[in-house]
Amino acid sequence: MPAREELIARAPEEHRARDIDLRMRTEVTEIDVPGQRVRWRELESGAEGWTGFDRLVIATGARPLRPPVPGVDAQGVFGVQTLEDGQALLDGLSGARGRRAVVVGAGYIGVEMAEALLKRGFEVTVVNRSEQPMSTLDPEMGRLVHRAMDGLGIRTVGSAEVTGFVADGDGRVRAVATEAAEYPADVVVLGVGVLPETSLAEAAGLPLGSSGGLLTDLAMRVRGQENVWAGGDCVEVLDLVSGRERYVPLGTHANKQGQVIGSNVGGDYATFPGVVGTAVSKVCDLEIARTGLRERDAREVGLRFVSVTVESTSRAGYYPGAAPMTVKMLAERRTGRLLGVQIVGREGAAKRVDVAAVALSARMSVEEVAALDLGYAPPFSPVWDPVLVAARKAVAAVRAAG
Amino acid sequence: MPAREELIARAPEEHRARDIDLRMRTEVTEIDVPGQRVRWRELESGAEGWTGFDRLVIATGARPLRPPVPGVDAQGVFGVQTLEDGQALLDGLSGARGRRAVVVGAGYIGVEMAEALLKRGFEVTVVNRSEQPMSTLDPEMGRLVHRAMDGLGIRTVGSAEVTGFVADGDGRVRAVATEAAEYPADVVVLGVGVLPETSLAEAAGLPLGSSGGLLTDLAMRVRGQENVWAGGDCVEVLDLVSGRERYVPLGTHANKQGQVIGSNVGGDYATFPGVVGTAVSKVCDLEIARTGLRERDAREVGLRFVSVTVESTSRAGYYPGAAPMTVKMLAERRTGRLLGVQIVGREGAAKRVDVAAVALSARMSVEEVAALDLGYAPPFSPVWDPVLVAARKAVAAVRAAG
Repeated sequence: MPAREELIARAPEEHRARDIDLRMRTEVTEIDVPGQRVRWRELESGAEGWTGFDRLVIATGARPLRPPVPGVDAQGVFGVQTLEDGQALLDGLSGARGRRAVVVGAGYIGVEMAEALLKRGFEVTVVNRSEQPMSTLDPEMGRLVHRAMDGLGIRTVGSAEVTGFVADGDGRVRAVATEAAEYPADVVVLGVGVLPETSLAEAAGLPLGSSGGLLTDLAMRVRGQENVWAGGDCVEVLDLVSGRERYVPLGTHANKQGQVIGSNVGGDYATFPGVVGTAVSKVCDLEIARTGLRERDAREVGLRFVSVTVESTSRAGYYPGAAPMTVKMLAERRTGRLLGVQIVGREGAAKRVDVAAVALSARMSVEEVAALDLGYAPPFSPVWDPVLVAARKAVAAVRAAG
Repeated sequence: MPAREELIARAPEEHRARDIDLRMRTEVTEIDVPGQRVRWRELESGAEGWTGFDRLVIATGARPLRPPVPGVDAQGVFGVQTLEDGQALLDGLSGARGRRAVVVGAGYIGVEMAEALLKRGFEVTVVNRSEQPMSTLDPEMGRLVHRAMDGLGIRTVGSAEVTGFVADGDGRVRAVATEAAEYPADVVVLGVGVLPETSLAEAAGLPLGSSGGLLTDLAMRVRGQENVWAGGDCVEVLDLVSGRERYVPLGTHANKQGQVIGSNVGGDYATFPGVVGTAVSKVCDLEIARTGLRERDAREVGLRFVSVTVESTSRAGYYPGAAPMTVKMLAERRTGRLLGVQIVGREGAAKRVDVAAVALSARMSVEEVAALDLGYAPPFSPVWDPVLVAARKAVAAVRAAG
């Protein structure tokens, strides 16, 4: 187990050593865009003041959703947003009265927390609003995750809306309630997603998208602004496959955007062209990956598509350690353009989605994908990589659909 | 250990069940292209005859090189081309007088045989003509492989030309000789590459390229022919990065070409657009991958380039199991076009090259590569995937080179 400090990419002193006037525990309470200044308040001393800017970068991140139901503030109900949250959860696990854990939400955070709790010896129940876990996948691919979680001994309850958290007289949580049932819990972890933290930006009249994230141009300038940039979990990004703005709060985008903003604010030039919606996750040895559009995303933007699913293996079938892998692929009708890929499998499944991610960026057709020159050797892949097998089937499906 | 039969994709009876008149142990001795017929000879009976064709497919494969030196036919010197070769080698290992093995050649076959022999308890020496193993990589990347092989206890002798095989009075090999030294050997494995088996095609006047492979069009028709197709290890392929024909005898291309030929011969339409030169291999837990052009390939076709090398890790640095990885990237000067990638590392290194393979097919610039939306989660990748880290450095190098 690495020390907590190993998770800190750069400590305050390191920033200050680079001549950055970093003010911790100081909250910005107002952005005055035309006046080119921000109002701040020191949390400990209560001191307040204004500081002017030539160029402003908004990186206010996201705030975790908390179900607005009774008992959500009971002792033993944990969020997992900050390093402090993580420490509080670890402390809470040590002090738990029993070994029953309930995770609310079955997205990336939810399934990863389920794994972590399982490994710490908890009996884990995941309560999820959608029918299947991982609603970033199409439901039948989520069902594969569900089945694998069953096999691991994680109980997953789908189509279940949490109506409240039941606490004992001492204020400690003892169950999670839904319409249909009550799930005993010595500890509860919330993994129900995040919202962009853009209240300051909104109050300052800066433009927000339909998900509430700031809208920027390709150089990460806030739209309509000359001297204000924004990046990370508080912005929406261009989805290159659908052509729409989406809210995709992921560290990999935040990091790239930070680099782009740094270049531009410093007078150089860089752009963040957009995303294709790649995400990978795991529950124990099950790997889960997706990129591009799900069926509902494609429909939403008016795309007609074919969808194929294939079963393949991570290595040549005869090679020791070959593990099964399910690949689903969507392609546009008529043009055969690749629209999306979802993969559920074991070792070597998740990062295979990168091939599709690059192909989506390049707007390749499934015919072009099927012809790709991917690495082949029996320890690494069947002679047709699972993604290529799916592409071949998609080519046939596009033709058949006419 | 899988049974020998598991390595057979399709047995003769399965072909015959599909109404294919398959004649085993029957050699074609002449192709009469204008007469649309082939002359054959049954190896056992010696019977000969002609069979006419409307459409001909040439899939004569490759023949393994054997160093043209004294003693190469000594007992205990094995090639590894066919299933029978494999069985003969396994039998030879059981009957070996001692545990000293010499592998001639340090390409894909050579290093994989070194691993296999090591795992069977042999003391392994690899004798190699190039200075470093894996000459499909640039020499300094090959040096990383060399060092790893040293660490595994495999002795690698570079810049060494085999001058002969020394046999005992009973005709059994006892040493491999080079100009400089003699390496004691109870068993010798040859892995010095293959040549296209195109003697029949050449005699028939069909067009061969500079490597001796048949030249085809994109539909895998032999150039200038209406009714003759060819594919697999007997053809040259178009290298999409250099624009030149190359000889790349790999199962993955052969398999795709077979599918393309089948479609076209059957009256449908398909093409094999070409390759980008992707190949992956391993020695024990060391993974080796390459795609696109090496420095010498780029120079040969007149490309000016920058070259960068980065050290990264397979997972987030703080995540258990993160393994080091070296990525080398070549980009064209001025345009920044990606030209090639080489990777040497541990778990998760080899198949990462697929991202570069797709980017090469799409003729992406390193700036486009650096912006790719690849899967990120700490168990699978640092927040900047190693390939993206290399691309960022290449972007800077292209700018600096002007």
